[in-house]
Amino acid sequence: MSGEWGAVVDVTIRRYAGVLLDVGLQVTRGQRLFVHAPTHAEALVHEIAVHAYRAGARNVDVLWTDPALDRARLLDGSDDAVAEVSYHAEVLSRAERHEDVHLRLFGDDALDQHPPVDDDRARLQAAAFQQARSRSSSITDFKRPWTLAAVPGPVWAGRVFPDLAPADAMGRLWDAVIRACRADEPDPVAAWRQHLARLDAICAHLQQQRYDRLRFVGPGTDLSVGLARAHAWAHPGTAPWGVANIPTEEAPTAPDAQRTQGTARIRRPAVIDGTLVRDAHLTFVDGAVVAATATTGQQALDELLATPGGDRLGEVALVPQSSRVAREGLVWHNTLFDENDASHIALGNVIPPCIHDGLAMSPEQLEAAGANLSPRHVDLVIGSNDVSTYGITANGTQDPLILNGEWAIPI
Amino acid sequence: MSGEWGAVVDVTIRRYAGVLLDVGLQVTRGQRLFVHAPTHAEALVHEIAVHAYRAGARNVDVLWTDPALDRARLLDGSDDAVAEVSYHAEVLSRAERHEDVHLRLFGDDALDQHPPVDDDRARLQAAAFQQARSRSSSITDFKRPWTLAAVPGPVWAGRVFPDLAPADAMGRLWDAVIRACRADEPDPVAAWRQHLARLDAICAHLQQQRYDRLRFVGPGTDLSVGLARAHAWAHPGTAPWGVANIPTEEAPTAPDAQRTQGTARIRRPAVIDGTLVRDAHLTFVDGAVVAATATTGQQALDELLATPGGDRLGEVALVPQSSRVAREGLVWHNTLFDENDASHIALGNVIPPCIHDGLAMSPEQLEAAGANLSPRHVDLVIGSNDVSTYGITANGTQDPLILNGEWAIPI
Repeated sequence: MSGEWGAVVDVTIRRYAGVLLDVGLQVTRGQRLFVHAPTHAEALVHEIAVHAYRAGARNVDVLWTDPALDRARLLDGSDDAVAEVSYHAEVLSRAERHEDVHLRLFGDDALDQHPPVDDDRARLQAAAFQQARSRSSSITDFKRPWTLAAVPGPVWAGRVFPDLAPADAMGRLWDAVIRACRADEPDPVAAWRQHLARLDAICAHLQQQRYDRLRFVGPGTDLSVGLARAHAWAHPGTAPWGVANIPTEEAPTAPDAQRTQGTARIRRPAVIDGTLVRDAHLTFVDGAVVAATATTGQQALDELLATPGGDRLGEVALVPQSSRVAREGLVWHNTLFDENDASHIALGNVIPPCIHDGLAMSPEQLEAAGANLSPRHVDLVIGSNDVSTYGITANGTQDPLILNGEWAIPI
Repeated sequence: MSGEWGAVVDVTIRRYAGVLLDVGLQVTRGQRLFVHAPTHAEALVHEIAVHAYRAGARNVDVLWTDPALDRARLLDGSDDAVAEVSYHAEVLSRAERHEDVHLRLFGDDALDQHPPVDDDRARLQAAAFQQARSRSSSITDFKRPWTLAAVPGPVWAGRVFPDLAPADAMGRLWDAVIRACRADEPDPVAAWRQHLARLDAICAHLQQQRYDRLRFVGPGTDLSVGLARAHAWAHPGTAPWGVANIPTEEAPTAPDAQRTQGTARIRRPAVIDGTLVRDAHLTFVDGAVVAATATTGQQALDELLATPGGDRLGEVALVPQSSRVAREGLVWHNTLFDENDASHIALGNVIPPCIHDGLAMSPEQLEAAGANLSPRHVDLVIGSNDVSTYGITANGTQDPLILNGEWAIPI
């Protein structure tokens, strides 16, 4: 952050901190805030701490992620070192014990930056880390408030703007993130209230239609996604505490794991297990992927498909091309943005709130409701401005939902 | 770190990491390394982790310091927030339990960067933090290996080179630190071996003379420092595990708390409790400061003198003007360097190894040996190239030790 842009960021970074806390987590008096963020997020995290304390937070703890330290352990550590774990496991468990509300900021640490490490050692380290945690719950189990958001970092900025000088790339990425997250608005909280009301209306309309399936049609894509009978259109802003993902532009719901048919062309590079997968095409029969090709990353794609539930859909989500995220016209290299950039499907686990009463259901109950269960959840973009989406009811009525990338519903 | 200089630092930063681990802590197979460092030390800390794992370390944990978070709690937090503590207290106690060897890197976090906070709240927070630690031992209690060293940061660099652009200031400060710590040598470990052998010889010579007192003479200074009868000349490189301070250029020993007489002009700005104290003059009678003036920071100086043992000497140390640190010709704004820049005295606690068998002594035994006890230890530079130092034996023989800033002993 340098030059003239430095002065601008001070204000917008403060507004962005406000969006994360006032819109995302809605931190209130007496709560404890836990921030898990890469070290390059320092300036933002300091604003967050000040904002949270002024809102009456009882404690703000920050755990800094550092993939380089993990890599040093895996690449250069002895076998003894790989079986040891950092204090991070204890600190994460402590945050759960204290019922901290959880803000996870992804930046350079969400990117695959490093040469691949020995898989056996990585698995050993992951198992040791998991064992060191007092509970194995993930932050996204909806047991306590959480928000996932992003923070620009130099490596990420370099991926998005490979032709710019580092400082310029950081500036451009910050600008794009700020706009996509409505932190450029004079009153971001009001702007979000308006935006979430529109998402609510869209989801309510879609819910009311009780579609049997969705159909996506475009170059290389003719896909019918059967919806779970108890599907709910539940965007991340319907989380009980606020908004679980920032930005959020999607209207997501739950497919029936057995009822997807046809072909899908994936329109954006996807990152699967740290590997970039380009130009993927998938063919589904009765819910399962029966053929999958990619020009790069075929092996990572095949490995995903071989994991339990990794070959069936856990999510389908509608996003218009006029979304704040899509309007930036970027390849984001970050799932939080790519999944709000265009309509997408996800291979792997269901999002429990996308099944009616799904949060209260056991895995068996979710499965009986038609939902897919999996340890994985990988978003794949299928929307674009040449793709249209239709909602089809049980009696065969076909409504246009998105035509050439834009909403076609009466909202 | 940018431009051409970035390429240079990759090599020297690696050598510097090697100095800290191979010379300072001498990390060996199976040891656990704990690094406590400011976030701007990231590049150096990554080299340290790789180096430590390659040396067989069983674990490397890094706790990132962040004064801005502490400040947010004190300035913006509720009273409840001030009575809470971060997880850092538990992590520091955990490191002690695991008998980690401890590397503390001081950078921007060692500087007074911020508006002063409410003292009562600061004391409350400090007490709560101390209570949260399972043991109250400090890392410098010589119970397990530790090394204190420095890492350039943008704020520190700006203090040392206020007229340079930020990137240039960082580059210049890194260069100076690297040279002062002998990381510019092709074989830094060999250079340190040679340097420590010379410090050993100097200390052995001074020890052999069994001086009764030292006398410092120069403009504004005529100070007689009576030495404790059981004084030991023990430089930081005599620590059982390696070198406790990097850089280290000093030959320190223990004064008798009752036997300092005369006046001392302090030749460098000193930082006392975060306040810069300039142009201090001290007058001692029978070991105690009886008059003290400063052009700025008088209150901080007075408060130090009012603490138990804060008005008497706990250390006297000889440093020539040809030391690697002094040769840089800088005002360092960092005690680790300022105390190796010129001869100095310290108000406050004795350094236990500077009394024979001092590490094995109880506080009462140390006091009986003539040592000063205090919760404080503040170094004050009295040496310069116009100051000479003499060693005076019990029978009145007076040997020149340093003449106009340079060693005058037969080493």
